[in-house]
Amino acid sequence: MFPLPLLLLLLLLPSPSSAADFCVADFSGPTSPLGFSCKKESAVTTSEFVFSGLGAAGNTDNIIKAAVTPAFASQFAGVNGLGISAARLDLAPGGVVPLHTHPAASELLFVTQGVICAGFISSANTPYTATLKKGDAMVFPQGLLHYQVNAGGTTAVAIVSFSSASPGLQITDFALFANNISTPLIQKVTFLDAEQILKLKKVLGGSG
Amino acid sequence: MFPLPLLLLLLLLPSPSSAADFCVADFSGPTSPLGFSCKKESAVTTSEFVFSGLGAAGNTDNIIKAAVTPAFASQFAGVNGLGISAARLDLAPGGVVPLHTHPAASELLFVTQGVICAGFISSANTPYTATLKKGDAMVFPQGLLHYQVNAGGTTAVAIVSFSSASPGLQITDFALFANNISTPLIQKVTFLDAEQILKLKKVLGGSG
Amino acid sequence: MFPLPLLLLLLLLPSPSSAADFCVADFSGPTSPLGFSCKKESAVTTSEFVFSGLGAAGNTDNIIKAAVTPAFASQFAGVNGLGISAARLDLAPGGVVPLHTHPAASELLFVTQGVICAGFISSANTPYTATLKKGDAMVFPQGLLHYQVNAGGTTAVAIVSFSSASPGLQITDFALFANNISTPLIQKVTFLDAEQILKLKKVLGGSG
Amino acid sequence: MFPLPLLLLLLLLPSPSSAADFCVADFSGPTSPLGFSCKKESAVTTSEFVFSGLGAAGNTDNIIKAAVTPAFASQFAGVNGLGISAARLDLAPGGVVPLHTHPAASELLFVTQGVICAGFISSANTPYTATLKKGDAMVFPQGLLHYQVNAGGTTAVAIVSFSSASPGLQITDFALFANNISTPLIQKVTFLDAEQILKLKKVLGGSG
Amino acid sequence: MFPLPLLLLLLLLPSPSSAADFCVADFSGPTSPLGFSCKKESAVTTSEFVFSGLGAAGNTDNIIKAAVTPAFASQFAGVNGLGISAARLDLAPGGVVPLHTHPAASELLFVTQGVICAGFISSANTPYTATLKKGDAMVFPQGLLHYQVNAGGTTAVAIVSFSSASPGLQITDFALFANNISTPLIQKVTFLDAEQILKLKKVLGGSG
Amino acid sequence: MFPLPLLLLLLLLPSPSSAADFCVADFSGPTSPLGFSCKKESAVTTSEFVFSGLGAAGNTDNIIKAAVTPAFASQFAGVNGLGISAARLDLAPGGVVPLHTHPAASELLFVTQGVICAGFISSANTPYTATLKKGDAMVFPQGLLHYQVNAGGTTAVAIVSFSSASPGLQITDFALFANNISTPLIQKVTFLDAEQILKLKKVLGGSG
Repeated sequence: MFPLPLLLLLLLLPSPSSAADFCVADFSGPTSPLGFSCKKESAVTTSEFVFSGLGAAGNTDNIIKAAVTPAFASQFAGVNGLGISAARLDLAPGGVVPLHTHPAASELLFVTQGVICAGFISSANTPYTATLKKGDAMVFPQGLLHYQVNAGGTTAVAIVSFSSASPGLQITDFALFANNISTPLIQKVTFLDAEQILKLKKVLGGSG
Repeated sequence: MFPLPLLLLLLLLPSPSSAADFCVADFSGPTSPLGFSCKKESAVTTSEFVFSGLGAAGNTDNIIKAAVTPAFASQFAGVNGLGISAARLDLAPGGVVPLHTHPAASELLFVTQGVICAGFISSANTPYTATLKKGDAMVFPQGLLHYQVNAGGTTAVAIVSFSSASPGLQITDFALFANNISTPLIQKVTFLDAEQILKLKKVLGGSG
Repeated sequence: MFPLPLLLLLLLLPSPSSAADFCVADFSGPTSPLGFSCKKESAVTTSEFVFSGLGAAGNTDNIIKAAVTPAFASQFAGVNGLGISAARLDLAPGGVVPLHTHPAASELLFVTQGVICAGFISSANTPYTATLKKGDAMVFPQGLLHYQVNAGGTTAVAIVSFSSASPGLQITDFALFANNISTPLIQKVTFLDAEQILKLKKVLGGSG
Repeated sequence: MFPLPLLLLLLLLPSPSSAADFCVADFSGPTSPLGFSCKKESAVTTSEFVFSGLGAAGNTDNIIKAAVTPAFASQFAGVNGLGISAARLDLAPGGVVPLHTHPAASELLFVTQGVICAGFISSANTPYTATLKKGDAMVFPQGLLHYQVNAGGTTAVAIVSFSSASPGLQITDFALFANNISTPLIQKVTFLDAEQILKLKKVLGGSG
Repeated sequence: MFPLPLLLLLLLLPSPSSAADFCVADFSGPTSPLGFSCKKESAVTTSEFVFSGLGAAGNTDNIIKAAVTPAFASQFAGVNGLGISAARLDLAPGGVVPLHTHPAASELLFVTQGVICAGFISSANTPYTATLKKGDAMVFPQGLLHYQVNAGGTTAVAIVSFSSASPGLQITDFALFANNISTPLIQKVTFLDAEQILKLKKVLGGSG
Repeated sequence: MFPLPLLLLLLLLPSPSSAADFCVADFSGPTSPLGFSCKKESAVTTSEFVFSGLGAAGNTDNIIKAAVTPAFASQFAGVNGLGISAARLDLAPGGVVPLHTHPAASELLFVTQGVICAGFISSANTPYTATLKKGDAMVFPQGLLHYQVNAGGTTAVAIVSFSSASPGLQITDFALFANNISTPLIQKVTFLDAEQILKLKKVLGGSG
């Protein structure tokens, strides 16, 4: 039934464009507006599509009693160009992921352990807040301010995914108090009092 | 310091376009190529951004000893238009999610319990296969054939996310053997033997 | 040289799809993830592609001595679906557009009068700040925190444009202090002191 | 080997979102910036994915001795939302498709009969011109001016496809001379002489 | 009427960005998620926008009595970045293009010779099948399984186009039986019998 | 209240992907279909997000008594990849920006001085024309023919923005009369008389 040589059969296949299937990040190449350059397909191995860093708890022994472990394109080369990435949140009791945005992605959070109070705020200044227990999911639309707070007495863990391989992460407090923007300027654009600003700059390492 | 009336302050705010923030699915409205119509923002409640259906195990008491519980825009109105969605996989011992594709999305799988052997096959016919334990993640590029198999002695569970609110799901066996495509035609386009086809049609409900 | 009847000539023209040229917003129709429904092309007039609201100064007689006059798709139906929109900023002496983001667009500012100190902060917490005089332009990448402050002794005016017909606008202070998010929760996610929060809530109309 | 009831098997399938697979145009519904509304999947038949209108020659008995038969979303409901469409060109001896652009799509032309001289002009004003015989293909980048001229003594036919379901078609001469733009204004924006303009308006039905 | 020197006239033209017009593939440069790098515009010639390889019949003297001749970005540098590409199908009597998907593109098929039975299967497992004669066109939505079979007594030919410059091509049988995926694993994910798998592996060159 | 060392705090921050925030053009690197390569974030300075070239009047001492000063990605590295750019139009009395298109962007014009008559023509050959005074804005949908003419007795100035960092600019007259396309070919594709063509070629530098 299949008498013809294999060689002839294979001739009918066009050589596939690696661009169509995937684009594993080549961190040594140039970056384009859409992400990192692609590794040659012949150099790609399965390990680049697998990421094990989300399995271990992040170190929550810090000021916010929380840890964010990213699996963005910068850490997980296989997601480059695929419009998806992930991260792990660890929230010790009392832990909090402070108010932040992802400028380039929507986020979908799934609680794997504990209880998390999470919320986002719309452009109309309406807060959407929920208490999520293990197994609950919540979506945070792109670019909007949101936060996650441990709402139980035990450590909480969540796996989050993003609609971009490089979602970005801008923590409002760090943007304001962890650099050298002058205190009077911060006062002007936030209405915060100078003492409040200086207090937080001291904690977060800002100057000016 | 803030002597002016509140009313004046609020006047400076443009009325926000609901289109910019989110587009919770209005299933009673028309559908566009990009997804469902949007609910009026005033009718949206927090509950539409929360999905609890991924917390409970799917029923794996079936032929493949597996269950897929989707949280696509059809089930989870809040993700509509946001380029992200999710699903839960339950794999009883011996369970398998058969060979399938998502025509419209890349997938990122995170193992929350058990051991899963997963793989995808590229356009160049190269298989990329990995054994994933709890905490491991793997990405499956858009549109490529892939599968997940329980590789341990206990139930395995994974949370998967997609780079689209409506990723689609085409299980190869169901596409071939669960409808009325004629057996001779299936033979032609798959090289499978007629007996094999008829055997699977019987199992999967196909005719012709 | 052109002896054939006109009628025949016109027959060769396909009836154009209105979708290809433009999609003037029909505010009475459903909204899709990409924007408002399109008016029938036969109902569209030139006036819908023209917007005169940016010619007059906004009212800066308010707490921030500033005004933002938007020409987004909600106000300027002609830009719907075209990936562009605009706004006018008026900054009286001492005026400020407080820290804010546009979740869905990059912004390009052009100073038409006065002197403006403007800046944005990257995900790496690096501030990029400049003093802009009449004729200068500055770009603010999508989703990043930024602000504009009058840096001269006279009224400053700028015309800004956006890479989306519905860029959104989230003013950080309003998101935090102009709604009913509880003070303890705000404390947790911002590290601000309770007194500071209560003070700003009073000014901006927040409760809780 | 497959002892379990079929019913259980089918339970594992999520109900697919019609948005993910295709979006056959519902011409009675509203239009979005991305195209027509989608028909309900249950109302879709195979015939909507098939278009027979490109098989017959268009009527070239006209001033340009040419015909363009479109299979855009407006005529071929099945391509709506799929980012592709087609058309047929018939060029009698001496026939010409005059200078035109497709504002929303790149075009790929394939000659099925005869000889065609085709070309496009870049933003740098460089012409790219080729003489194409049966079996040759040429691509015209999005939005650039291009044309096709019968370059043989017999009828030429081409099948063209587009990177959009609604590519649009703007014939420069028709845009200028087939409406009521005033002759002095056309003079100003084209440098053409008034007599030339009036001559072409007469042929193409323009006034003013 | 035009007294001023030509030199002055040309000064008003901005130097065009090559990125806006086209991006002819530079195969020696890095690849980005959206395709190949662009050749410098000064090095681009008309020949790169013309492809003659679709004019000649492919070699159908093989197991499937069919040939696919691609004009993707990998073969046709001019389409890179333009969102369109093409291919030629030759189907000798009895020929078949086996069940396959294009992970990254919708396909539009136009029959130029003979009779072709073509079909695709939706995510809902519904087959959409049609018998196409010369001049008929059919569209296959992105990522869905489809096939083409010669349905007449003579050679059939079709020109197909794609909504991507790199549509990809995954032939289901090759993905399963032309590599080293183990037979037990294939059994698990396809429900096929081992003998059937081994038989096809022998034909298609698979091992394991 | 914040007793833990700063170092621990900073550990919780993922290293940001420069791709997510911005992509300042590196003109020495390769170009992708989406734009220029990105500079390393560490090499980026504020000055690259600021452009001062739009503040000065362009030289209108030329045939069209007009000047276009672009701030596209080629001139304004900071907008690369951000989907926005700008330009300045200067129109001396009697000045005109001749009929042209932007193949890759919609345009939003804002009049800062004088009176401008502007218009675009749709695919349906309908002209949309308006007389714009200082403060008026008008939008020109992507790829459609449009023009701007000084409609007052004094110099007019406009700031325009585009929905792409590289909108392209194709002036119809230059595309036809400023290169070496043969006069008979231009006659064929435009219906213009040979004398008219030769006259304009002489002015615009064309040959053939």
